[in-house]
Amino acid sequence: MIRIDLNSDLGESFGNYKIGMDEQLMKYISSANIACGFHAGDPMIMEKTIGLALDHDVAIGAHPAYPDLVGFGRRNMKVSVEELKAMVKYQVAALKGMTESLGGKLQHVKPHGAMYNQAAADLNLALAIAEGIKEIDTKLIFMGLANSYMHTAAEHAGLLFASEVFADRAYNKLGKLVSRSEEGAVIHDPKVVCERVLRMVKEGKVISIEGAEVALNADTICIHGDNPAAFDLAVKIYESLHENKIQIKALR
Amino acid sequence: MIRIDLNSDLGESFGNYKIGMDEQLMKYISSANIACGFHAGDPMIMEKTIGLALDHDVAIGAHPAYPDLVGFGRRNMKVSVEELKAMVKYQVAALKGMTESLGGKLQHVKPHGAMYNQAAADLNLALAIAEGIKEIDTKLIFMGLANSYMHTAAEHAGLLFASEVFADRAYNKLGKLVSRSEEGAVIHDPKVVCERVLRMVKEGKVISIEGAEVALNADTICIHGDNPAAFDLAVKIYESLHENKIQIKALR
Amino acid sequence: MIRIDLNSDLGESFGNYKIGMDEQLMKYISSANIACGFHAGDPMIMEKTIGLALDHDVAIGAHPAYPDLVGFGRRNMKVSVEELKAMVKYQVAALKGMTESLGGKLQHVKPHGAMYNQAAADLNLALAIAEGIKEIDTKLIFMGLANSYMHTAAEHAGLLFASEVFADRAYNKLGKLVSRSEEGAVIHDPKVVCERVLRMVKEGKVISIEGAEVALNADTICIHGDNPAAFDLAVKIYESLHENKIQIKALR
Amino acid sequence: MIRIDLNSDLGESFGNYKIGMDEQLMKYISSANIACGFHAGDPMIMEKTIGLALDHDVAIGAHPAYPDLVGFGRRNMKVSVEELKAMVKYQVAALKGMTESLGGKLQHVKPHGAMYNQAAADLNLALAIAEGIKEIDTKLIFMGLANSYMHTAAEHAGLLFASEVFADRAYNKLGKLVSRSEEGAVIHDPKVVCERVLRMVKEGKVISIEGAEVALNADTICIHGDNPAAFDLAVKIYESLHENKIQIKALR
Repeated sequence: MIRIDLNSDLGESFGNYKIGMDEQLMKYISSANIACGFHAGDPMIMEKTIGLALDHDVAIGAHPAYPDLVGFGRRNMKVSVEELKAMVKYQVAALKGMTESLGGKLQHVKPHGAMYNQAAADLNLALAIAEGIKEIDTKLIFMGLANSYMHTAAEHAGLLFASEVFADRAYNKLGKLVSRSEEGAVIHDPKVVCERVLRMVKEGKVISIEGAEVALNADTICIHGDNPAAFDLAVKIYESLHENKIQIKALR
Repeated sequence: MIRIDLNSDLGESFGNYKIGMDEQLMKYISSANIACGFHAGDPMIMEKTIGLALDHDVAIGAHPAYPDLVGFGRRNMKVSVEELKAMVKYQVAALKGMTESLGGKLQHVKPHGAMYNQAAADLNLALAIAEGIKEIDTKLIFMGLANSYMHTAAEHAGLLFASEVFADRAYNKLGKLVSRSEEGAVIHDPKVVCERVLRMVKEGKVISIEGAEVALNADTICIHGDNPAAFDLAVKIYESLHENKIQIKALR
Repeated sequence: MIRIDLNSDLGESFGNYKIGMDEQLMKYISSANIACGFHAGDPMIMEKTIGLALDHDVAIGAHPAYPDLVGFGRRNMKVSVEELKAMVKYQVAALKGMTESLGGKLQHVKPHGAMYNQAAADLNLALAIAEGIKEIDTKLIFMGLANSYMHTAAEHAGLLFASEVFADRAYNKLGKLVSRSEEGAVIHDPKVVCERVLRMVKEGKVISIEGAEVALNADTICIHGDNPAAFDLAVKIYESLHENKIQIKALR
Repeated sequence: MIRIDLNSDLGESFGNYKIGMDEQLMKYISSANIACGFHAGDPMIMEKTIGLALDHDVAIGAHPAYPDLVGFGRRNMKVSVEELKAMVKYQVAALKGMTESLGGKLQHVKPHGAMYNQAAADLNLALAIAEGIKEIDTKLIFMGLANSYMHTAAEHAGLLFASEVFADRAYNKLGKLVSRSEEGAVIHDPKVVCERVLRMVKEGKVISIEGAEVALNADTICIHGDNPAAFDLAVKIYESLHENKIQIKALR
């Protein structure tokens, strides 16, 4: 039976501020990337979200980010590799300890926002993250963009890597994400999205924006739930996978 | 041979800001309480300070605080017990993971500043801290004010407790610290300070501000190094203990 | 014609986090208390909210708070009077300058959350706030809890004071707010709320929780819009005032 | 009589953290750039530093920065022009209001660290800063790097511009700063530094790193005081200017 992991960024509320449809999403995903307090999340929200994931038998990952609350971790920032490694270690260690305190086990680490994007395109940053993850726990899976420097860095560090693909995003002929600023970068028709997902999962392929068939290894699909439309799409993807007898299962 | 632990708050720099004489102090202490990023410290400084402690064979403790950088964690704050427990867990887990990543082992947890003072006088807060520590690691030692609710809470949670005493502070006839706002609360003569320390360590007693001999259990003595005068006093206490054949040794 | 001011706390979103029904509320209020970045709000949100208030001809006030984003400024905090005064000045000056840059004029200052509650009960804190306001602009109106130390402090500093009352809260026979922790502190029936509001505005009186008629000077009524139920109540109060020919008008 | 302004970044302490030799430097400068709480500074330190500048008859400027305390505002950050403009307005307005509350008048605005460096090389960012300054007060002087986009942007916005030069830094043949990463970028010999300063001030020229004489308009010279060596150099520059009968005077 073919299987795939569905992951989502959760626990991104902060103090009095609520964001995301965490409780509803838990039923449709197999891995949760939980914010660690730098771009979102606070200790109470982390505890609550870990608990929620454990209740739904959803695998838990750390979702470290740049220290940028007002920018939600989405702003590129020039950090040194030493600093990047240290901030990854801090956040992963915090979430790992809290997860274990509630009887869980940390499965993976997926960088957030600008950290994710910058590391995808910069091997030194990707290596710093990989080293940070490895120093906290060599068994952790590095989840990152398929066909990016994060994959290279994980291999270099001897970490397992989970290739992440995006259901509603276009890829170019090199198997790289088309930037959101380009036309056609986001696919809006749920039917097309679901078809693309099936092809990625079953054949490891995607039709590029240029129209060619491109190899694309998919270990996990990113699912959004920060608004009702995104949530609806998530449910549709889940149901389409289910109907096609593809098992939705965490990485480990 | 009689032994005592000397502890100090370290790693309290932040980003570009330097504070404390960490490197010099390391030679005179046996336990380091390392800031965890809430009142002071950042991931890079935490790593550096852990490394420094390991190099000097100084035992490592977490020094969690309220989220109050501008107030250096010294401002009383009304936090719920759930929030307090969660923030202790987050900070302890972060420092524990980073310590282990460098080959060390976390020995203890000592709350900082206002969190320390409020928990000393409020059993519910002390219990929240003790529960938080315990959920991260049942082997951790809770270091707190001698004769305070922190001791009660540690016992309640089944944690080992290290009674902390202050070398240069007056105690009242109940064995409680005299508030800094009262006259005579701080003892300035290094000779008197060293004599008091010896009596605390060798006899478990102190002369109260009222003039009576009071029992005072001392597992660890707090040493300051945030200014040259404090550092000089620290060296004098260290030397006085050394001359009196008292072993300076970490808690474990 | 009798007149009353309706005020509401606005601009309390932060970065990616949205809170409050600011746009909808603008039609039903005459004064907006805009967050200044310490408990909520950021420069972009401040600008946007000032612009919204100007568009709706709603008077603008600064809503300074303790530096406590994760606690939304609702946690009591022990700050010195010097620090309190300085933080009020900083926040008021920032909002005043931004308001004037958009062609507006700052009308008032209303402290937020824990700062409001602590100053209501502590004359020294209230005086620090009043002095801070006065040093930025002697013409600003201090908006604060009716029958509290904030009123005393405003008079002492020579500032105009706007007595704030709460539509859905019980008062005791001294004209003081009944604490939310006590039974009957919050009035839930919209009809009763509207009747109480009319009596406050028209007669300057309220029936206390003990059942007695108490004098209660009302210059402005606090309106909430952070959830649909609160918003509905706000609309009901507005309509009830309107039907009773009471003019809803800013303080100045 | 020839005149020049000497400016320095001050008020960069934060809470319990002290940085800089503000009191000593005040005697040797004519303009102070005061941190506004985003990269350094807090309301109390801002007040104290403004007071110090007023006591020494030193002109006051705002020193706005990116919201990056842990990075001391020195990390490049990708911010939108709307956000940049709003954060400049917030910080300038806060410092302006506090300065006026103490009887002073804001003279200028000099961006800090990464904001300064990025705006020097990016016209859109420079324009956003200029617009922000202008919206708060059209009379404010924009202080920025000589021969940079900040100059262009100030002219575009109709603001006065003060060209800043660096006493101990090499320039290339285009009159641009040589990057610190290149050899010879920093000049260490105080004698050479003082000679270069005299030539800049008296002739408006500098010998470039390539050896050619280059025009360099100097309205103000940046002076550092964050360590004793920098402070010594500052005193030497001051004395050299004094001996050469060059008046040290604020911009206005």
